[in-house]
Amino acid sequence: MSNLDAIGFIDSGVGGLTVVKESLRQLPNEKVIYLGDTARCPYGPRPVEQVIQYTREMTQFLLEKNIKMLVIACNTATAVALDILRKEIDIPVIGVILPGSSEAIKRTSNNRIAVIGTEGTVASHAYGNTINGKSPDTEVIELACPKFVPIVESKKYDTPLAKMVVAETLKPLKEKKVDCLVLGCTHYPLLRPLVQNVMGSGVSLIDSGAETVDHISMLLDYFEIAAPAKRNDLSHEFYATGSVSMFEEIAADWLGLSNVEVKKAKIEQD
Amino acid sequence: MSNLDAIGFIDSGVGGLTVVKESLRQLPNEKVIYLGDTARCPYGPRPVEQVIQYTREMTQFLLEKNIKMLVIACNTATAVALDILRKEIDIPVIGVILPGSSEAIKRTSNNRIAVIGTEGTVASHAYGNTINGKSPDTEVIELACPKFVPIVESKKYDTPLAKMVVAETLKPLKEKKVDCLVLGCTHYPLLRPLVQNVMGSGVSLIDSGAETVDHISMLLDYFEIAAPAKRNDLSHEFYATGSVSMFEEIAADWLGLSNVEVKKAKIEQD
Repeated sequence: MSNLDAIGFIDSGVGGLTVVKESLRQLPNEKVIYLGDTARCPYGPRPVEQVIQYTREMTQFLLEKNIKMLVIACNTATAVALDILRKEIDIPVIGVILPGSSEAIKRTSNNRIAVIGTEGTVASHAYGNTINGKSPDTEVIELACPKFVPIVESKKYDTPLAKMVVAETLKPLKEKKVDCLVLGCTHYPLLRPLVQNVMGSGVSLIDSGAETVDHISMLLDYFEIAAPAKRNDLSHEFYATGSVSMFEEIAADWLGLSNVEVKKAKIEQD
Repeated sequence: MSNLDAIGFIDSGVGGLTVVKESLRQLPNEKVIYLGDTARCPYGPRPVEQVIQYTREMTQFLLEKNIKMLVIACNTATAVALDILRKEIDIPVIGVILPGSSEAIKRTSNNRIAVIGTEGTVASHAYGNTINGKSPDTEVIELACPKFVPIVESKKYDTPLAKMVVAETLKPLKEKKVDCLVLGCTHYPLLRPLVQNVMGSGVSLIDSGAETVDHISMLLDYFEIAAPAKRNDLSHEFYATGSVSMFEEIAADWLGLSNVEVKKAKIEQD
């Protein structure tokens, strides 16, 4: 393994690009290889065993490209597959739930935190368990928002439809008096302005993906696998199992990378 | 190993208590075992091989107490012994130089950073190399302050003598136009008000020890060895190889732990 090897990112679709965006900003010398399983998105409503299996298949695809670290840039997959993958593979594996949880505990003043995520993430109580494991007196209100990922993946995240769906879905949270809300799905930062608008400016929004980049940086240093500064051999790679053109549009729109070339990935199913 | 085991902290003397202070604040459920080598302090002017040997002996003392993580809360020892110890022992080992360097890079606006430390730390260029490895365009001005540790260890850190020594020592830095200064020795936070006064309010001071606690927290989580919340079996242990009473005074004065009982440690020399 070499320090020049890439960091691998996997997600059920385009959501993990919000983590990549932050990685490109904070860690400009790190090569990125990204795989979005857009053909099988969303993961949220799928049975646990299936999410584990899909996550393993994506991981295998990236391991063959010699990644030095794996980031599960998907809350649903982190919730059910992180511990399993850590035991199965030899490189460091990072999920998005712990960084988001830690930041929420730091940020809340009234010890009332809302977490929004997919059905799978909410059913796992991964956020509630992590937050209460560190801070037992904190009340965690978890809410599944199953309509959000399809809105983002269909590139409707800045439409009047999105605004209406976000307002309706978050209604039950309005009276819970939380001062902090975790965007517990890497797709949700694309809906951030709408979520902030519904929750009000007094509620601090936490992007678990962005927080994850701090952990990536620290672990690259700890394991002494950070890339050297000022390298000039950087060419990021993006793969999608489904539509390539939709992926390229969102990458351009969100990453500001207008010349991203996305390749179609063929996943080997065990 | 159990999650209830302690985090071990070693330092040449009382300086590492500034890291412990921050650990007690941020990680209140973690048991601390601290060893200060006050009998052989300061480490700064000693030859590299001797610092490595002393650090090994302190580490051995703490390993026999079943620590789950080792924090080298001493810049001089981190500079020369961190990489060696990581290869020699099985638990995670954390030093103070990387966290301080990373924070300095984040904090500076004009890319001019001063680092003050012992002769050993400055001669190793550990800060300069770490900072420039990540940020090659940043200018790092390293200055040895050999008189600072004796002032702190003799509990004269808030006297007119200390004020004069700090002002004289830092004079060469005044015209360097740095906007950020790393307290690159865990003793120096006890001189912080004096350093700030000499450098002026426009210079941001970075306490490398306090930054280290963020890394400790993240690695406890990564390796899944964090202590459970709300434990009621916490009794910290403090050991010094030299004077116990002086150590207790500074612990009370700085940690605000008035009932710290410090035990005399007998270090086995190989």
